[in-house]
Amino acid sequence: MRHLLDIQSLSQEEISEILRLAENLKEILIRPIPKVPTLRGKLVLLLFYEPSTRTKFSFERACKVLSADTMSFSAKGSSLEKGETILDTVKNLYALGVNLLVIRHNLSGTPHFLAKHLKIPVVNAGDGIHEHPTQALLDLLTVKEKLGTLSGLKVAIVGDIKHSRVAHSDILAFQKMGSSVYVTGPAHLLPEPKEREFFEVKSGGFKVCYKMEDALKDADVVMALRIQRERHGEPFIPALKEYAEIFGLTPKYLELIKEKALLMHPGPINWGVELSYEMEKYPFQVILDQVENGVAVRMAVLLRFLSGD
Amino acid sequence: MRHLLDIQSLSQEEISEILRLAENLKEILIRPIPKVPTLRGKLVLLLFYEPSTRTKFSFERACKVLSADTMSFSAKGSSLEKGETILDTVKNLYALGVNLLVIRHNLSGTPHFLAKHLKIPVVNAGDGIHEHPTQALLDLLTVKEKLGTLSGLKVAIVGDIKHSRVAHSDILAFQKMGSSVYVTGPAHLLPEPKEREFFEVKSGGFKVCYKMEDALKDADVVMALRIQRERHGEPFIPALKEYAEIFGLTPKYLELIKEKALLMHPGPINWGVELSYEMEKYPFQVILDQVENGVAVRMAVLLRFLSGD
Amino acid sequence: MRHLLDIQSLSQEEISEILRLAENLKEILIRPIPKVPTLRGKLVLLLFYEPSTRTKFSFERACKVLSADTMSFSAKGSSLEKGETILDTVKNLYALGVNLLVIRHNLSGTPHFLAKHLKIPVVNAGDGIHEHPTQALLDLLTVKEKLGTLSGLKVAIVGDIKHSRVAHSDILAFQKMGSSVYVTGPAHLLPEPKEREFFEVKSGGFKVCYKMEDALKDADVVMALRIQRERHGEPFIPALKEYAEIFGLTPKYLELIKEKALLMHPGPINWGVELSYEMEKYPFQVILDQVENGVAVRMAVLLRFLSGD
Repeated sequence: MRHLLDIQSLSQEEISEILRLAENLKEILIRPIPKVPTLRGKLVLLLFYEPSTRTKFSFERACKVLSADTMSFSAKGSSLEKGETILDTVKNLYALGVNLLVIRHNLSGTPHFLAKHLKIPVVNAGDGIHEHPTQALLDLLTVKEKLGTLSGLKVAIVGDIKHSRVAHSDILAFQKMGSSVYVTGPAHLLPEPKEREFFEVKSGGFKVCYKMEDALKDADVVMALRIQRERHGEPFIPALKEYAEIFGLTPKYLELIKEKALLMHPGPINWGVELSYEMEKYPFQVILDQVENGVAVRMAVLLRFLSGD
Repeated sequence: MRHLLDIQSLSQEEISEILRLAENLKEILIRPIPKVPTLRGKLVLLLFYEPSTRTKFSFERACKVLSADTMSFSAKGSSLEKGETILDTVKNLYALGVNLLVIRHNLSGTPHFLAKHLKIPVVNAGDGIHEHPTQALLDLLTVKEKLGTLSGLKVAIVGDIKHSRVAHSDILAFQKMGSSVYVTGPAHLLPEPKEREFFEVKSGGFKVCYKMEDALKDADVVMALRIQRERHGEPFIPALKEYAEIFGLTPKYLELIKEKALLMHPGPINWGVELSYEMEKYPFQVILDQVENGVAVRMAVLLRFLSGD
Repeated sequence: MRHLLDIQSLSQEEISEILRLAENLKEILIRPIPKVPTLRGKLVLLLFYEPSTRTKFSFERACKVLSADTMSFSAKGSSLEKGETILDTVKNLYALGVNLLVIRHNLSGTPHFLAKHLKIPVVNAGDGIHEHPTQALLDLLTVKEKLGTLSGLKVAIVGDIKHSRVAHSDILAFQKMGSSVYVTGPAHLLPEPKEREFFEVKSGGFKVCYKMEDALKDADVVMALRIQRERHGEPFIPALKEYAEIFGLTPKYLELIKEKALLMHPGPINWGVELSYEMEKYPFQVILDQVENGVAVRMAVLLRFLSGD
């Protein structure tokens, strides 16, 4: 493993190794002084071409805990405005002494393109509608912590499956660890038959459901996706209100899922749309645990690539 | 004291304690290496929803001197653009491991709202037209240093009293420490009778003056406020030139105030408006001392909340 | 030397001293942990009024290697929006405890203006169309490393000589170290006779060439400048395609220059304009070496000003 570009190219063993490392690293986060000098003098570049709060801060926090330095860069106010290609920008930043690149980009495949040309590890922090692998890793860590296993579970994902990079990474990640993934949402936002091959993993099970009931019935984990109007080229998505009525998770759906089934969301949440306001009180809602685990998972990824130097 | 939300809810003893701590901390700032490891591993979030240079940098500098880590966040380019509520944003940032929140917001009361929902200390760095408590604390520290006392002084504040959060905090702060506060400015920008109760503190004295002379006569401290057109919904404010002619501090007014009376301004200054250009040379102008003391006061506030953990 | 404002006011000995220091400092950059505590507790303010990636990051990286703290500031979102003068902003930042100011500004002479009013060292990171001294210093360092000397060389600079602050600094710097500088480019973008005096240094030689051949013939170093349309008030510059045909460096020009002559560019590059795409493979292209040396030169400048305190 030279980069972290997607879940698709990771083996079950590679995923397990990151999760084990992250579990161990959580111990550092609860110390009175949550700071170790492990990555002192390492320089991590955070290159975000799309707005981000939690992912960027999560990586930043992970760097600080490990004492790595960070430099942050957004497309605005940079030499990209002067017409430089992203590859030239990144080569230059590498020449400045960057040890690892974290990149979010609106074009799917950008991290893979950069990885081909760079000698340093590239970590995908979300590329277009393709993948968001560290999000899936933190989701795995959260489920493993709460349910004790990642094997044999039924994971339901609800929303715009087609355009969600979070969904794509999670579909692959949970199957690789031995669970089945059931997706549902508005018919137009479900993967088309020819796209489904991409999502099928041998060790798992993948099913596209046209009814909420089929996806949620006896689920161990329910993940609601964020409605992301910004990613839709066409007016595919039903009006928000209509969406909320059918696909918004409300108390009535809790009867379908297993007792103590987890409720997850990658954030930021549109309360009243994907999740009704009552769901915040659901006792097995683990949305902030996901955020917390994001720091541990990113620490693990940074250590995995930088501690061996 | 669990948060620093406003001057109004602070006791005289709490204010005195912060000032004493800040005085002691100034010793660190003049060392060859002005850096102590006291807050190593603590993470301070600077959440600024309004433009700021000096306040943001002042907090940032205070954090660096104490070796706390900082993460900065402005509304632009954040997930707020994706429609997340401020409470969700802050809860998420808390889950990332933030130990203290510094917030500036254009809506009065936002820090109080967040404080109700967060387990970490919230420090108000200016909320709408309400208060700006650390500014008042640094003003107190500056006057105490220069005049030796905060008791029995006459403090004159000139400008848009109604909309100035700096004025509001100073009016309360100086009275709490035993001084009298006289405010003046264009009639429309003075507190209306029904608003005055808010500004009256038992141990002090508060007076609204319709004439510059009444406010400035024998003052120990004169504070000019910044004209902030951005805060006015209506064309209340006289044209700048007209304002400057009556309320701009010029050498002619120096005859009214006490010998060696201090001249203060929270900055940024509109030279030629609130202060005539000649006032920069006035020997008891302490505007940059205020800035310097801002760092010490913010160090004291950070220490007060974070060193005991 | 109290500031680094331009190459023009530096002596050969001052330049040599910075280069020697930078050469020594490169040793730190290749260590497993490229970090020394030399400037711990020092605060460097990076004040960029124009977009920048590499220069800003280069200074930032230099600060981090030496353990100096940094605060970054761009005109947007700052109190400049509130109408404060740059001098007031900088005085305030100084009162906050800044130890050195790095400034890029679109107005030529701004660093000199600030240097007159500040007690801390000012480092010019590019002022309008005037100078960009640290760029010239890193260019010198790169040539010295690769060719072993800075004396007796023929340095050709191609492009918009008139408006390029990089060209201006390089023309002066290479001559001061004993080399000759030949410039060429579109006739309208060459210095006019009355401007040429500025560029002549006694110990060197300066020639304006109207033909590419005259400039490139037997050159030891060829530097292509970036086409910066943003700096031109009038439509002086030929269309890009036309420019590329005559002044773009292509393999055919390699026959004119000396064997193993260096090819340089300050970046960001418009590939296909100043440099044809094939030039990336030219074995004596040292563009990323320039970037790398930028960190060392900036470390030397920071140390020169801050380590003696």
